[in-house]
Amino acid sequence: MKKLAILGSTGSIGVNTLDIIERFRDKYEIVALSAGSNIQLLKEQIAKFKPKVVSVLNEPLANRLKEELDPLDIEILYGIEGTNRVATLSEVDMVVSAIVGAAGLIPSVSAIKARKNIALANKETLVMAGKIVMKEAKENGVTIFPIDSEHSAVFQSLLGHQKKDVKRIILTASGGPFLNCSREELANVTIQEALNHPVWEMGKKITIDSASLMNKGLEVIEARWLFDIPYEKIDVHIHPQSIVHSMVEYIDGSVVAQMGLPDMRGPISYALAYPERLPTELPSLNLLEIDKLTFELPDEKRFPALRLAYRAVEEGGTMPAVLNAANEIAVEAFLNNKIGFTGIPHIIKQTMNSYKVKEINTIQDALEADSWARMKAKMLI
Amino acid sequence: MKKLAILGSTGSIGVNTLDIIERFRDKYEIVALSAGSNIQLLKEQIAKFKPKVVSVLNEPLANRLKEELDPLDIEILYGIEGTNRVATLSEVDMVVSAIVGAAGLIPSVSAIKARKNIALANKETLVMAGKIVMKEAKENGVTIFPIDSEHSAVFQSLLGHQKKDVKRIILTASGGPFLNCSREELANVTIQEALNHPVWEMGKKITIDSASLMNKGLEVIEARWLFDIPYEKIDVHIHPQSIVHSMVEYIDGSVVAQMGLPDMRGPISYALAYPERLPTELPSLNLLEIDKLTFELPDEKRFPALRLAYRAVEEGGTMPAVLNAANEIAVEAFLNNKIGFTGIPHIIKQTMNSYKVKEINTIQDALEADSWARMKAKMLI
Repeated sequence: MKKLAILGSTGSIGVNTLDIIERFRDKYEIVALSAGSNIQLLKEQIAKFKPKVVSVLNEPLANRLKEELDPLDIEILYGIEGTNRVATLSEVDMVVSAIVGAAGLIPSVSAIKARKNIALANKETLVMAGKIVMKEAKENGVTIFPIDSEHSAVFQSLLGHQKKDVKRIILTASGGPFLNCSREELANVTIQEALNHPVWEMGKKITIDSASLMNKGLEVIEARWLFDIPYEKIDVHIHPQSIVHSMVEYIDGSVVAQMGLPDMRGPISYALAYPERLPTELPSLNLLEIDKLTFELPDEKRFPALRLAYRAVEEGGTMPAVLNAANEIAVEAFLNNKIGFTGIPHIIKQTMNSYKVKEINTIQDALEADSWARMKAKMLI
Repeated sequence: MKKLAILGSTGSIGVNTLDIIERFRDKYEIVALSAGSNIQLLKEQIAKFKPKVVSVLNEPLANRLKEELDPLDIEILYGIEGTNRVATLSEVDMVVSAIVGAAGLIPSVSAIKARKNIALANKETLVMAGKIVMKEAKENGVTIFPIDSEHSAVFQSLLGHQKKDVKRIILTASGGPFLNCSREELANVTIQEALNHPVWEMGKKITIDSASLMNKGLEVIEARWLFDIPYEKIDVHIHPQSIVHSMVEYIDGSVVAQMGLPDMRGPISYALAYPERLPTELPSLNLLEIDKLTFELPDEKRFPALRLAYRAVEEGGTMPAVLNAANEIAVEAFLNNKIGFTGIPHIIKQTMNSYKVKEINTIQDALEADSWARMKAKMLI
């Protein structure tokens, strides 16, 4: 029986994780859940999975939950301290880190320091502080299992092969809803259009990041740290069908790829079960029903976010944290109708241009860069 | 320094193997070569790689070679005994088994009994006597590395994953030159048309087998033994671009695939170097230059050879040896203009229909079935 804590249980990844776990109750036990403010859904999850500890966003929500739950055989916490406790409970074997955005960094690091294996959906953990996080993971004997389709694909395509023989990693990208839009059309897309992803069903923030290709840029940075591969060896191919989830090319010309239907429960179940696999009975890939698989280069002129991400990882240090924070602010501004879609990379670029990159030696360094960039981006908006 | 013997050095696989070895003279030493009657090419190979032992088809050829070679610091042998000596020399680490057809079986088994690791191109070794051969390999601690693109792809797609989690293996097939021919057109194809494979450059026998899809049928049987997977879990997809060399689907819906340009030197170099990889500097796969990847089901009505192979492995015992022998005779008859292209599966089917399947407990059982089927097929022609 593997004992799990889920950080971000009411988000898209959290819900999909619990959907998997519900099918394999004999293999997994939910010990703790941390959520934000979706108390209604959290209550349903508590009723179904009976965790011992839950944490919510703040004290009023915690109090409301206490009133609404009876009988009270559950520890109810709140805030960063609550999330950290969920991430570090002694009886937990694995922590599913699925809080969206920079807020996911601290609890991920807490879990690693508490020697929990990590199923990592939170990109920012590695984007903001990959160097520190991977060092902590190594020192604490922790394995980080990616739960996004691309890094899970790379993980599966590296298994059994030697990292010294890797020529390059090719991350695939669906290209999002605006793959074939002109620059003029991109300037005028609506929030609704941007939220309408052609393949993947995800949260709002990551859906916008997919539309701008920033999501792929963040994944390049993540892959750089997760697999300890120089960013020059990480390429991106647009693959609109989202069947080949990513690939690894070796020095002898052999390319190993992982494929599947676009369903988050694939990589989630793999991270939960490794080295086993779960007979998930999800609809399985039938290549005979797929018209064709195609690959093209991303157009960095129309989608400058990807280029900005490469620039951030090249400059290194705290710059990826700045990129990420500016992006979060810009996406929020877009979703609040304060800037247009092409304003997103513009704000990020301006923020990066104003920043003098620093070395990153502690999580604090990443957090300071993050704060600075948020202020700067807000001012620019 | 890995010490190699090559059985079938002047054939297509032998020549490609030596092409690889020439680039990595610091890693590989050719100790022995066995060839048929292409003395001219063998002489060039001897001059370049300086083996200590060579073997040719018969005594007259051996004598001719002795006369033409000076100075004579090389042991020249001939016939089955000569090939067996090449396959079992004490100083050899790995034997490349690349003799075409049933003649490759005995020396492969000899090499396994002499505890040599095998780089196996000869399909018949496993088709005719897979059960016995794999048992011998296990008992002698021998690893068999496939050097055909499909099985090398499966090998690479299984590495690091658990065999118990395999849902099915999908072997890909280019479909050959007659993929879109009607049954009537197939009845009238010429030898030259059949030898004109759209993707792969190979020997004559295997090129005809590719055109009839018997090659894929033999590969299904080979995969069944090499990977110890029931034939019901081995499927075939037509993939005209020959980029995805084969795939493994796991129980969680994940599909791991190996891709590359269609070049035999890929799987050969992998078999030679495993667990390393050689920086072969072959032209590498660029998916951006490939229009699209497509997959379809093979049409067993137009290409009955594939169905016959499934039938043979289902009936088991000595039937695959009968299938294989009848195919060799029928292909030879086609190449000699004695039967038409659609006559090939017809002869095989008639031969199989006349045969009462026996258990296979020794190599001798396979050889007897082989002899019987050759006679029967010749009578039918």
